[in-house]
Amino acid sequence: MTLDTADLVDRRIPGRSLEAPFYASREVFDLDLAAVWTRQWIFVAAEGELPEPGDYVTAAIGPYSIIVVRDDDENLTALHNVCRHRGARILTEERGSVGNIVCGYHKWTYRTDGSLLHAPAQDGGFDPACFGLKTVHVRSVGGLVFVCLAEDPPPDFAEVASRIEPYLLPHRLREAKVAARVDLVEDCNWKLTMENNRECYHCDGHPELVRSFFPTYGYREDQLPPPLRPAYERYCRVRAELRETYDRLGLPYETIEELTRPSGFRIEREPLDLAGESFTPDGTAACRRLLADFPTARLGHLSLHWQPNAWFHVLSEHAITFAVLPIAPDRTLLRTTWLVHPDAEEGVDYDLGRLTKVWTATNEQDADLVTRAQCGITSPAYEPGPYAPSEYQVDAFCTWYLTRLREHLRR
Amino acid sequence: MTLDTADLVDRRIPGRSLEAPFYASREVFDLDLAAVWTRQWIFVAAEGELPEPGDYVTAAIGPYSIIVVRDDDENLTALHNVCRHRGARILTEERGSVGNIVCGYHKWTYRTDGSLLHAPAQDGGFDPACFGLKTVHVRSVGGLVFVCLAEDPPPDFAEVASRIEPYLLPHRLREAKVAARVDLVEDCNWKLTMENNRECYHCDGHPELVRSFFPTYGYREDQLPPPLRPAYERYCRVRAELRETYDRLGLPYETIEELTRPSGFRIEREPLDLAGESFTPDGTAACRRLLADFPTARLGHLSLHWQPNAWFHVLSEHAITFAVLPIAPDRTLLRTTWLVHPDAEEGVDYDLGRLTKVWTATNEQDADLVTRAQCGITSPAYEPGPYAPSEYQVDAFCTWYLTRLREHLRR
Amino acid sequence: MTLDTADLVDRRIPGRSLEAPFYASREVFDLDLAAVWTRQWIFVAAEGELPEPGDYVTAAIGPYSIIVVRDDDENLTALHNVCRHRGARILTEERGSVGNIVCGYHKWTYRTDGSLLHAPAQDGGFDPACFGLKTVHVRSVGGLVFVCLAEDPPPDFAEVASRIEPYLLPHRLREAKVAARVDLVEDCNWKLTMENNRECYHCDGHPELVRSFFPTYGYREDQLPPPLRPAYERYCRVRAELRETYDRLGLPYETIEELTRPSGFRIEREPLDLAGESFTPDGTAACRRLLADFPTARLGHLSLHWQPNAWFHVLSEHAITFAVLPIAPDRTLLRTTWLVHPDAEEGVDYDLGRLTKVWTATNEQDADLVTRAQCGITSPAYEPGPYAPSEYQVDAFCTWYLTRLREHLRR
Repeated sequence: MTLDTADLVDRRIPGRSLEAPFYASREVFDLDLAAVWTRQWIFVAAEGELPEPGDYVTAAIGPYSIIVVRDDDENLTALHNVCRHRGARILTEERGSVGNIVCGYHKWTYRTDGSLLHAPAQDGGFDPACFGLKTVHVRSVGGLVFVCLAEDPPPDFAEVASRIEPYLLPHRLREAKVAARVDLVEDCNWKLTMENNRECYHCDGHPELVRSFFPTYGYREDQLPPPLRPAYERYCRVRAELRETYDRLGLPYETIEELTRPSGFRIEREPLDLAGESFTPDGTAACRRLLADFPTARLGHLSLHWQPNAWFHVLSEHAITFAVLPIAPDRTLLRTTWLVHPDAEEGVDYDLGRLTKVWTATNEQDADLVTRAQCGITSPAYEPGPYAPSEYQVDAFCTWYLTRLREHLRR
Repeated sequence: MTLDTADLVDRRIPGRSLEAPFYASREVFDLDLAAVWTRQWIFVAAEGELPEPGDYVTAAIGPYSIIVVRDDDENLTALHNVCRHRGARILTEERGSVGNIVCGYHKWTYRTDGSLLHAPAQDGGFDPACFGLKTVHVRSVGGLVFVCLAEDPPPDFAEVASRIEPYLLPHRLREAKVAARVDLVEDCNWKLTMENNRECYHCDGHPELVRSFFPTYGYREDQLPPPLRPAYERYCRVRAELRETYDRLGLPYETIEELTRPSGFRIEREPLDLAGESFTPDGTAACRRLLADFPTARLGHLSLHWQPNAWFHVLSEHAITFAVLPIAPDRTLLRTTWLVHPDAEEGVDYDLGRLTKVWTATNEQDADLVTRAQCGITSPAYEPGPYAPSEYQVDAFCTWYLTRLREHLRR
Repeated sequence: MTLDTADLVDRRIPGRSLEAPFYASREVFDLDLAAVWTRQWIFVAAEGELPEPGDYVTAAIGPYSIIVVRDDDENLTALHNVCRHRGARILTEERGSVGNIVCGYHKWTYRTDGSLLHAPAQDGGFDPACFGLKTVHVRSVGGLVFVCLAEDPPPDFAEVASRIEPYLLPHRLREAKVAARVDLVEDCNWKLTMENNRECYHCDGHPELVRSFFPTYGYREDQLPPPLRPAYERYCRVRAELRETYDRLGLPYETIEELTRPSGFRIEREPLDLAGESFTPDGTAACRRLLADFPTARLGHLSLHWQPNAWFHVLSEHAITFAVLPIAPDRTLLRTTWLVHPDAEEGVDYDLGRLTKVWTATNEQDADLVTRAQCGITSPAYEPGPYAPSEYQVDAFCTWYLTRLREHLRR
């Protein structure tokens, strides 16, 4: 029953969905860990979750547990959450604040930079310098925290970061605070979660969300179905107005789409429909306090797609981060975090229900859809089918993914 | 750790239960799917569950999900429940009614015959004719619906159907309506569910059921234990009376037992004890409206055993179908459906509790027994033991099963 | 992905924890069953659980289910809990009392010595003598019941038993009755449960227990950290007094530590802190009725460590047995039983809450700690770390374990 994964990668037909083992087999899941999750830059948190020294978050990337902690010098450190004594998991909460990092089993005590401060009752031969927590690469890009488990991370990250950061910095995410965070476990392979995000061909299933999006969202102009032409013209008018605003405020808005490079991404600024300010039923701002000193709340959304595991919507008055983390071949965590201005007050500047409503509903709808996808794909009668033109980013995701597998299998 | 399944098949001792891997291993489960479940005719539903065009049921056969739907011409169609776009499961309910079959993910829309009616937003190169739902063989025998996932179904089915149908047709099951349907998940391999059904050696564990059966049920005359002789003589008298009734009404009653052929079956008409009309505490009819224009409710039961996955009790006033469907090596679905005359009214013609009581209790008792069997068999101390004479149909089931495995391993 | 278990055994570094597959892989779990659980003497119950003929307990050792029953001659018998007919589990309760052992499936009836008394409705060729329940070796040592699933049990057991028994007999555990029994399922490999028991380096996590133990518990004198010197001197004074009592009462107290032989064990008598009588908040007796005719309740505790699966605390007025039984690679049963004098009355001689409080709390704290250990070890970032001096018995446990694996791999 051993899969020939190389053959599986080679025989993929471009423009079609992947074969079932990519979504269902333990062997491919292990391959994904080796080729993707322990090799690429993975988005895990917003800096707003760790404002003070000692603040930490933990994240599970497959079987790995990672601590990201702000150290005493206010730098970010990422560490393996595994005691160097007998391997116990050290921090068992998803987030919190510590002075030192103390293992609850035998009280081995580490500094926030991972070095071992104290191990009780050792004899003379014991050298604490040999038993610091193992470190993990960590980088913040405009307030978004990425880690990389590889010894040698993909070298193109710095360049990509330098191109993304100018879009993000004006929104001051580094200082933003967490208004809400929701963990949703989806009963599907992580790639189905990602593929689902990379197209709006299914957006009929999102009645709340589609009110905010122009109906043309997700289409390239040359692929627009004729019935969407009038909507497209309206969209073009709004976009033209908005670009004047962007120019005035010095907000970069050129779309960059480099989805298949190692640190693959896509970034763009797009108008929202209705009032154009936020993801709310009428499109007006969900938070009165804007993220930065913008003269208007009507800035549309800055949309960032990150390979392999994240997407972001950054608005004038709040931002939402989505991190996808694999649990098992058929279980995936989607962690959604809403960020607002650090001084915005719940109940005064924003109503939490209104702020989170659209994407909470959208996530739950998506969880249902991807479960259907996982169920269907496990039937031996499944065979890969063709992507529609508006699903070109799904195809790009698959191409990115298979390129990483090929690189890994060559190594 | 790889099993030598061929050796396992070869070394089985006739007259003894099967070795543990047949009940517990994933490898044998996969073999069962290949040799049995995707090759033989499998009972999945009664026609009474799909009276109108657009009515459908779904059934899971291991990892497969199958739709059986009555199409616009009132014919039965069976389809794989897997969208040809990206593989989503299309119909997620166990039964219902549809105009077209619409995938909830991206709204690909299929006719009830499986052909693709519409896929939104495709470009010119897309040919809908290439993307109809995959079809599955389907046949109704006197109102009982069988499917076969093989390309070439066992050729003996037509002949078997022609011999069974005369027994069934007088009971008009094709028009019968569903009074109740109960799904019970048993924590055992599907073969333990079947083997349990194929003997009444354990019927001491069914106090409700044994009131309806003559104590001789399940024994061949030459194997009757002496203490059952008096009961056997009583049974013979009742059977003789009943056969006069059958002759008068033109109901065939010759027992046919061909349990080891590919479309293996056993059919017989047998008296019931007590009032002899139905499975009720006193044996009187549970439904006042008979299934057909019989002049008496006292017709005993028509019993049909089907290899590999079903049994049926057809009475004068109701019928019960039992479909066994494999979920995992140690989990099995038993789907029980009670059918009554289409015009019978609950609360007027029958009380639902009284109608379903005996077999609901019996099924639950059996679920407990087969769980014990599964638990015990997983001990490495288990070794196959001898069947008692009254368990000869269990042995026949094993022979049928191993013959199918041998045929498959030869292919 | 096949593990080279021999290589894994060979490359273990003494003084360090084991590599992850020892705690997490199914292959090593199966190896453990073959090399340890079906080969060594396993503690399963106290005789006090089976005072009368027909009394039985069942125990699951991995996939095996074992019955220990007191037969009509008041001897202990151990049997595989698998019917010789079709393999059903016979006794499904954890303990109870029977006349004969009757399988609930088809009423095959066995005597308490395992022989088949009756199988219903068989023909002449059936020989009951061929179908008795399979037997298992069983031995009681001073009231503690051990079984061995091997055909040829380790030959050193008789000698070990003869050395342990004199310590146990004065406490009359054979007649003691069960005051309480608690089953706790821990989400970890069985070896983590055992390793956790073999050191008090983590006893800071047991605030209730450490009140009863001298702070020096678990240390060898030559490894005592300097801050524990004053406590050690106090301990020595109490120990000297206690040894006079032991001498007067004829209680053996020499420490024997032979942890790596096949029937590996460690036995000692040790003072308890505070009042020194029992595991209670102030150290006074939890049960007014002593286990035997001791002139004082102040006897400290007799501590017995058993490889691979048990430990015991025997006091003047109660005793506690701890049996560790493997369920799955990452699930383990800890069965704790409190024994008191057969005439001790709950509510009169002892308060059940007070009797069980310290070890119930300690077990729950340990369950949390070993779960952390299991979680952490499953990260690929885990690597074996060094034991502290006071963890020398953990290292001895690992040495014992690896010796058993080596012996098995050589066979």
